[in-house]
Amino acid sequence: MKVGQQHYRTIWLGADGWSVEVIDQRRLPHDFATVRLTNLSEAADAIRTMVVRGAPLIGATAAYGFALAMRADASETGIASARTALIATRPTAVNLRWAVDEMTTLVRQLPGDRRAAAAYRRAGEICDEDVRINAAIGDHGVKLIEAAWNQKARASRVNVLTHCNAGWLATVDWGTALAPVYKAHAAGIPVHVWADETRPRNQGASLTAWELGQHGVPHTVIVDNAGGHLMQRGLVDLCLVGTDRTSRGGDVCNKIGTYLKALAAEDTGVPFYVSLPGPTIDWTIRDGLRAIPIEERDIEEVTTISGRDPQGRIVSVGLTPESSPAANYAFDVTPARLVTALITERGVCEASEEGLSALYPERAAAS
Amino acid sequence: MKVGQQHYRTIWLGADGWSVEVIDQRRLPHDFATVRLTNLSEAADAIRTMVVRGAPLIGATAAYGFALAMRADASETGIASARTALIATRPTAVNLRWAVDEMTTLVRQLPGDRRAAAAYRRAGEICDEDVRINAAIGDHGVKLIEAAWNQKARASRVNVLTHCNAGWLATVDWGTALAPVYKAHAAGIPVHVWADETRPRNQGASLTAWELGQHGVPHTVIVDNAGGHLMQRGLVDLCLVGTDRTSRGGDVCNKIGTYLKALAAEDTGVPFYVSLPGPTIDWTIRDGLRAIPIEERDIEEVTTISGRDPQGRIVSVGLTPESSPAANYAFDVTPARLVTALITERGVCEASEEGLSALYPERAAAS
Repeated sequence: MKVGQQHYRTIWLGADGWSVEVIDQRRLPHDFATVRLTNLSEAADAIRTMVVRGAPLIGATAAYGFALAMRADASETGIASARTALIATRPTAVNLRWAVDEMTTLVRQLPGDRRAAAAYRRAGEICDEDVRINAAIGDHGVKLIEAAWNQKARASRVNVLTHCNAGWLATVDWGTALAPVYKAHAAGIPVHVWADETRPRNQGASLTAWELGQHGVPHTVIVDNAGGHLMQRGLVDLCLVGTDRTSRGGDVCNKIGTYLKALAAEDTGVPFYVSLPGPTIDWTIRDGLRAIPIEERDIEEVTTISGRDPQGRIVSVGLTPESSPAANYAFDVTPARLVTALITERGVCEASEEGLSALYPERAAAS
Repeated sequence: MKVGQQHYRTIWLGADGWSVEVIDQRRLPHDFATVRLTNLSEAADAIRTMVVRGAPLIGATAAYGFALAMRADASETGIASARTALIATRPTAVNLRWAVDEMTTLVRQLPGDRRAAAAYRRAGEICDEDVRINAAIGDHGVKLIEAAWNQKARASRVNVLTHCNAGWLATVDWGTALAPVYKAHAAGIPVHVWADETRPRNQGASLTAWELGQHGVPHTVIVDNAGGHLMQRGLVDLCLVGTDRTSRGGDVCNKIGTYLKALAAEDTGVPFYVSLPGPTIDWTIRDGLRAIPIEERDIEEVTTISGRDPQGRIVSVGLTPESSPAANYAFDVTPARLVTALITERGVCEASEEGLSALYPERAAAS
């Protein structure tokens, strides 16, 4: 989507034809800067330290990280190192594992001297596929936004509430939750987004607000506590969020706090939609609440926050008493019963095994 | 309660016998400092700028502010100025209005030269009454904590989740939501508190965590998004929150985000208790959701946050893109149906008109 007036993806091959460039998302919304990745360890660090984040972009970065690794060492040892380094970066991310497995299978079919080139080609395809998938999610989801607009007799803007960042910055382009929003904006539907700031890492305040603003989509930043009140007052027409992992039963593992918004949506009769690309469905898991492990991250994400000081410098400030402990669960699971529908690249379905199996019969049958 | 090893209230008469001292809560948890109030305008500013906050402490400060005003000008003009200045500070706070009305009625019965002394005496009584009320809330509420502990066969600590700060810092002493916690701690019940940080003003991370830590009560700071997940995982035995205003029907207007935690408690079968002193019941309102006006505060509370920088200075940092709008609703209303019980100084009751009327028959009959 647009940054200023220029179109960007979040990851692209450098002018040298082999290094990989990404937007440094840790510096947004204060600075727009890109980072050049030249080897496996830099790619793994970029994922681990959240230079890049968002399930699809993590997958794409892992694919390119694997290609960088093959460029340096395409032996079985090189493959094993790449797998270990990449998979260790983010335990919850299912597309990371998918991308690494995909690359591994591919290169193992080839002699050593052809592995790097094939890995680069496949990484590029994974990026292009992600863009196609997200655009398709947008095409399906925009109908739900249009329906909400029609339900108001097109009399006022359509208010979408989103949590965290499942926008184009979380993917290669378009986004998952925000793809329908960008499609609606492009179609002239007056869409406005309530962006949850999404503590602790504030991806909503820093990334969602930034990308919507750069692309020209009206939006308002709110604290994570506010969504329920907005829904009670009729100020939200639909919720649209992404997911890091969806069980075959339709349970949604997404950024911590998603469950609370889904409860409010159910209580107030607001539709709660979850956008997801097919590869994020975990067909091995039926009950997300029992089976999905929840990543606990550094408590510094809770006890401190970074922002722009009055001199324009990005600084991290402490928020809590120095002796107070903190806990930092990164995700929660929203049970399928609270999800109005899932929006996928193949269409919209009920959040249930029946719904998902009807859209992905080959995946359902294989597992 | 204790700060270091010393016992404090949040508001007290200065050594000179007429000025009023309060803890500057804006500087917590980083600095412990007190502020001396010497006239009406300083008292009103202290309420408006949240040097003091919390419904009961606002009422107590308003009472002393009224006394300071009478000391300067005890005429009808002085009374009118005091009323206007104090009531304008925080529109949602029902005890503020109650305290100001109480003081007005009192002084109007007296000749001008006796008004200041009587106002000081009454302000002191209001403080002492608040302490008595909160201690009584604690005595009633501790039984619910003990019951939760017994239900676990006293096998592990009792986990209480609280939102915002309804601790002793919000009152003159003891607190409302936290009074039962302090009583439990004193009784040797192993109580542990999950403290929601409570954006935008972060009263949980800065005040609740600080006061619990100073008094020696085990606690853990979490982001506002985390409570639902903790409840899903069985890590919360009960929720305990305060309220700024309670309708006669038992609807609870409290810090934004309370409603979301109540929804999670209902969904997971965790008891959700609300502590309140009788004076915060608004007998003129039945349906809190329709009738209670919600204060919207400066959006800077959302777009910025203050904390301690690496050099130990308290600085405010910007969190959002400079061109992104924000909205800042300060409270939400939790419908009575989501509240397991109300804890008052007269006992525990159902969150309903029947429940409240049985405890406060004289108030119910009078309105």
